[in-house]
This record gives sequence, structure tokens and C-alpha cells, in this order.
Amino acid sequence: MAAEIVNPRSDSDGTTDEELFDPAFALHRGGKMAIQATVPVRNRDDLSLAYTPGVAKVCSAIAEQPELVHDYTWKSQVVAVVTDGSAVLGLGDIGPEASLPVMEGKAILFKQFGGVDAVPIALDCRDVDDIIDTVARLAPSFGGINLEDISAPRCFEIERRLQERLDIPIFHDDQHGTAVVTLAALRNASKLTGRTLGQLRAVISGAGAAGVAIAKILVEAGIGDVVVCDRKGIVSAGRDDLTDVKRDLASYTNKAGLAGSLEKALDGADVFIGVSGGTVPESAVATMAKDAMIFAMANPNPEIHPDVAHKYAAVVATGRSDFPNQINNVLAFPGIFAGALQVRASRITEGMKLAAAEALAAVVADELSADCVIPSPFDERVAPAVTAAVAAAARAEGVARR
Amino acid sequence: MAAEIVNPRSDSDGTTDEELFDPAFALHRGGKMAIQATVPVRNRDDLSLAYTPGVAKVCSAIAEQPELVHDYTWKSQVVAVVTDGSAVLGLGDIGPEASLPVMEGKAILFKQFGGVDAVPIALDCRDVDDIIDTVARLAPSFGGINLEDISAPRCFEIERRLQERLDIPIFHDDQHGTAVVTLAALRNASKLTGRTLGQLRAVISGAGAAGVAIAKILVEAGIGDVVVCDRKGIVSAGRDDLTDVKRDLASYTNKAGLAGSLEKALDGADVFIGVSGGTVPESAVATMAKDAMIFAMANPNPEIHPDVAHKYAAVVATGRSDFPNQINNVLAFPGIFAGALQVRASRITEGMKLAAAEALAAVVADELSADCVIPSPFDERVAPAVTAAVAAAARAEGVARR
Repeated sequence: MAAEIVNPRSDSDGTTDEELFDPAFALHRGGKMAIQATVPVRNRDDLSLAYTPGVAKVCSAIAEQPELVHDYTWKSQVVAVVTDGSAVLGLGDIGPEASLPVMEGKAILFKQFGGVDAVPIALDCRDVDDIIDTVARLAPSFGGINLEDISAPRCFEIERRLQERLDIPIFHDDQHGTAVVTLAALRNASKLTGRTLGQLRAVISGAGAAGVAIAKILVEAGIGDVVVCDRKGIVSAGRDDLTDVKRDLASYTNKAGLAGSLEKALDGADVFIGVSGGTVPESAVATMAKDAMIFAMANPNPEIHPDVAHKYAAVVATGRSDFPNQINNVLAFPGIFAGALQVRASRITEGMKLAAAEALAAVVADELSADCVIPSPFDERVAPAVTAAVAAAARAEGVARR
Repeated sequence: MAAEIVNPRSDSDGTTDEELFDPAFALHRGGKMAIQATVPVRNRDDLSLAYTPGVAKVCSAIAEQPELVHDYTWKSQVVAVVTDGSAVLGLGDIGPEASLPVMEGKAILFKQFGGVDAVPIALDCRDVDDIIDTVARLAPSFGGINLEDISAPRCFEIERRLQERLDIPIFHDDQHGTAVVTLAALRNASKLTGRTLGQLRAVISGAGAAGVAIAKILVEAGIGDVVVCDRKGIVSAGRDDLTDVKRDLASYTNKAGLAGSLEKALDGADVFIGVSGGTVPESAVATMAKDAMIFAMANPNPEIHPDVAHKYAAVVATGRSDFPNQINNVLAFPGIFAGALQVRASRITEGMKLAAAEALAAVVADELSADCVIPSPFDERVAPAVTAAVAAAARAEGVARR
């Protein structure tokens, strides 16, 4: 009824040729999402149930018994995708409005891959306290919060303090989504090359959101040792220039007490994980252990090009869709939230993330090969497997509410 | 893909018989809305356009030229329906979670009647400054803000200060939606009884959000005189117990300088407008002028029952759907926002509201009768007429950006 009166695809003035002819601009015109009513509002009877007066008794019931909000609203199936636009893709600090196309993209991936509704919320504020207060205030409307593209180290404090304050899952996907998929790929790569995680020494290039979370989950999963490098080299307890987050990182990584450059860390290492950009010299790659695993995830330019990596490594993965073994967060976040929402989890625990990684790795099963250590994002088995594993882990860990 | 893994209609424990068998509860189970992707994400090519890497150039374009956010995201077609749950329907202060069914209902009415996407945002805060800061921070994601069910007098300050701060429309529907529909009905009722607005003296029972806004729009529209009554009687400059808002109200209403009770105000009045609840004694109704118009809009119990009202009035309207002439906000807000968004208006001016009321009144045209001074909410001509009038008025008033 009257839907034609707003034309979301209409033209603005001053459209450039690039905008007119580039398929990405054409696809984005008018945005990528819409709201859909799931109940009819065609006549007075419909209206009197979905709105006044019928809605009043539903409101009263929730006021008396607050947990009913999960049954009688969309709260338990909708996630806010929250950003401040401070660290968007490789573009950096482009602000809230310019980040919206990414947040909408994320929202439709939530729907497509996990059946989870998601709403983009790009915030016009930068102060950590302001972001926390704002998200906490709008939390009654959502079953979970996916933090996205918020710069480090602010992202760590925002996530931690929000989770302390709220009883719905707070999940910074740039950290944990990447970590879960990386761990899944590493599990399969180890299996393929006949080693356990405990036998591996990994080097992570990058100590931002993704690097820190990958280090943490690898340690949780029982990696032999992991060394994280930032722009100044190996993050080690001996350095006096570390932020709080990196000092903490130094306390549970780098058991061997290495100090110095990334090249030094790579000497004899079994695993390289790149989440930094930049280029690793081939001479350093050549010093890695036999049957190395190279996950060079920078986009669009991997830290080690696959052609180079294959000379030295048994398994090569990237962040790109045009090479085998794409480490893509979409393999994790839809199922993780779907599982958490399904059981109304109050948070997403380490155990739930580890379970997600295991389930994701297991999807590959008999197809496991050097070019298939991780499933395709379009493998329809992925989201149900991750969802079920995360829901079960939430119950096992005592954070499920149903 | 994998949409079945979240079952929004699944049962919770402890469901009561009322919840099981009442059609309103049955309808509300799992909520009333969902997100829909409007672009495909079926394969790698789709993904590389809708998400990385294709999305990056769209983000960069918006970062360079901020107004492109209206072209390449859903911003210009989505409204936030914001409440703090402090004045929900007739239920009062039931808090944010319990208000969600109403906000979802509003959201689907926006979509159904105006083609406008809307997202419920129920805030867990009550302080005026906190609400304003929160809404201002999430504004980049939305093309407009519909304030809903926020208690008076806080609603007035919140709307005014938000509109001063933001360049998207801020619209408190409990005020202006009701005012627009009331004015439309009054225009037609006057026409039917052969009078101009300038010849009418109106009495409004209720000085909350709706009462204040109706008084304001009637004065803007050229009513002869309007007297507003609160629980203590006529709002007049002589009273020393008035809030700032009511003192302001006294300055442009009650030209005759009446003081005393509602009954006194009704003596000889042409129009009664009830937005208060409570009951007006029949003896007072009997003192109204010939060919009176009675709009008794309290729900579910009109201040003057239609059976009583018809004894004395030429035109009777209520807020109920089971009597003729339902004063229902859904006649106004979808078209008002659709029109404002269509031209990317920076605000909704008095002129746009007056234009909406005129367009709404005009829909009735030849069908005008005592039982039809306002169209049905399901009259498909309504939203397009209001949309076009509001868009044109926005252009005329210089607040349109396209």
C-alpha cells in the first residue's frame, strides 16, 4: 500500500560517471536493506491486534514479567551492528556516515547466512565512555551487540566494559570473528601436516584488534607458543613502550622470551599469521620451519603473496576470495550470534568461540586438503554447524537462559 | 540459507493460558518485523560488490562527499522510533522493554502505510540530557527520528533541543500526529456545518503532549479561540501553578480570558476535543453551542460516549475504530515522514503539518458527511496525498535538500 511513494532508487544530482557505471555504486543505490512486517496489517482487525488496543496487554505482560520481551518482540532475533567509523576496512577513520555501507553489508550477511536480523548503528561520538553509555542505553531493543570497525585499543575497553554492564552478548567481530576462523583453519592445517596445536610455534604480525584476539584464542586452544609482532618488532615483556593491552599480551605469549624483529621471530616458526598489511621479505619466509603454514590475511595485498608462500609452506591461506582458503569472518559471526540468540545467552564465552572454531573446522571433514582447510562462505553446512555448537557450549558454560 | 536455524516463533517455558489462547499474544510471538536484504548475496561476485572489496569505494565516496550517504545507504528511507517507555499508550511508565511491542507496531505501520522503513529504539535512560545525547549520537544512521510515548513535559524539551542540534526531522508523533489528524477532521466538520475555523471556539481537555500540540496547530490554522483545560481547570495566565509549557500555552490561547472549570469553558463552546481520559458530565455537554463538534479521543473510554455526544453534537469523532470518524495518527505519520524523507527535509515545519492536515481533509472530498469527516486508515489515497503535500510544503518552506 502506497509503497511507491518513496523511491529509494531515485537519482541525486551531481552523479559522477564512476557512480553511474561502477557496478558497486549501482548495487548500493538506495541501500541494501529494508524492514519487513511479519504480521498482516490489512484491516481494522489486524490493526487492533498488532497495534492498539491489542498490543496493550502484551506490553502489560512484559512489564510484569520482563523476560517475556524475548517471546513477544523481535529483541531475541535482532543484533545492533555498532561502529563509530574509526577503523573501517583498510580505509581507517572515515566517520559514521561513510561507514554505513559496510554496516549494512554486515547486516545483510547476518540475515543471509545466520537468519539473524541486524540493524546498522553508526555513532557520532568517539569518547570511550560516550560509546559505552550510548550502547548501554539502546540495549533494551536488541538481543546482542556486534561491535564493528572501532579502532584499537579503544575496542578492547569498550567491549569489556559493555559486557560487564549488559546481560546480552557483546562481540567485537574484528577481534573474535577473525580469531575463530583463523583457529579453525589452523586446526585443519595442523591435522593435514600431522601435528597438534601444542607442537606449533606461531608468529602473528599485527597487534591490533585481530592480532590480539588471535593470540588469545590460540593460547586458549593450546598452541605451543605464539609470538606477536607490532611495527616495532616482537611484543616482549622487556619492552618499555607497550600499551596496557600489549603488556598483557606479553604476559601470556612469547614463552621463549624472544626479542627483536619479525624476521627474527619467523626463524624456525611453524605458522605465520598476517593481520597487519606490509610485506614480509622472502628471505625471512625462507627461514620458517618445514611444512610451514602461512595465513597472510591483509586485504587486498597479502603480507606474503601466495606465489611466494607456496615455495616454503604446506598450507597457504589469505583474506581474498580469489585464492583458496579464504579466512572470512562471515564463516563465524552469523552462526555465533544465531547460536547465542537461540539460547538467549548472556554473553559469548571463550568456550563458545572455541566450540565455533571446532565446528567450523569439522565442516571440511573428508574434503580436507592443502587447498581446503576452511569451508567456502557459501557452504550451507557452516552456519547450522556453528549455531548448534555455540548454543550447546553456551548451555555447558551456564550462560544460556533457555 | 540457514534461515531455519533461528526459530522466532519457538516457545518459552512458563507460557500462560492467556498467552497461549489470546490472539494478540499469538500474533506477537517472535515479534512483528524482520530485516530483508534488498540486494543478492548468493555467490562470491555478489559478496565482493555488497561487501569487501566493492563496498570500500562507496565508503570512500561518502567520506569525500558526505551527502552521498543519502544515495548509497538506506539512511534516507529509515526512521528511528525512539522512546524511553515513560508514557506508553494508556499504560503509563512501563519502561523500555515493555514498550517494544508498541514501537514495533509503529514501525510496521510506517512500512505498511508510508513505505518507510523504521527501527524501534527503546532507551534505558530517563534524563532529558541523556536522551538527547543518545539520539544525537545515533542520528547518522537515520533519515529522521520519530519520538514516541515520552512523558510530558520532557517530550517538549527533548524534541526542541534535538531539532536544534540535528539536521534531520525530529517529530514527536503523540503531539503532532494527533494534532494534524484532529485539524483535518475539524476542517471537514466545520465545512459540513457551514462555518470557518475562525468562527469556532474550541475547548481541549488535556494539556499533555497531544493537548498542547492540538492547541498550537489550531491557533496556527486560525481558530477563533481555543481554551485548554488540565486537571485543575482552564489554563489561564492568571494561574500561579503553571509549568513553563502551560504558561506559554496561556499566552496564545484563551483570548477571552476565561478562568475556572472545564464545565465553564464548555458553556457555549463549538468544539470539544478530549485527549485526557476522565468523563465529561452530560449536563456540561448540554451547554455547548448548536451544531457542536465533539472529538472525544480517550481510549478505550471516550470522555463523552458517542451515544451521549450525538444528542448534542452535529459531528462526533473518537479514537476508537468501532465508531465512525476515528482520529488515528496512522493517517498522518507515515505520509508526513515519507514526504519529508522524499525531499530530504532537514525538519518538519508548521507549514508542512498544516499542509498534511489540508491534504488529509481533502481526501474525503465528495464523501463528506457527519459520519465521514476523516478518511479510514485503510483508504489508499491517504498516504500518497499527505506525502505529496508535505514534500511540496518542505520545498516551499526552504527545508528540502532535493
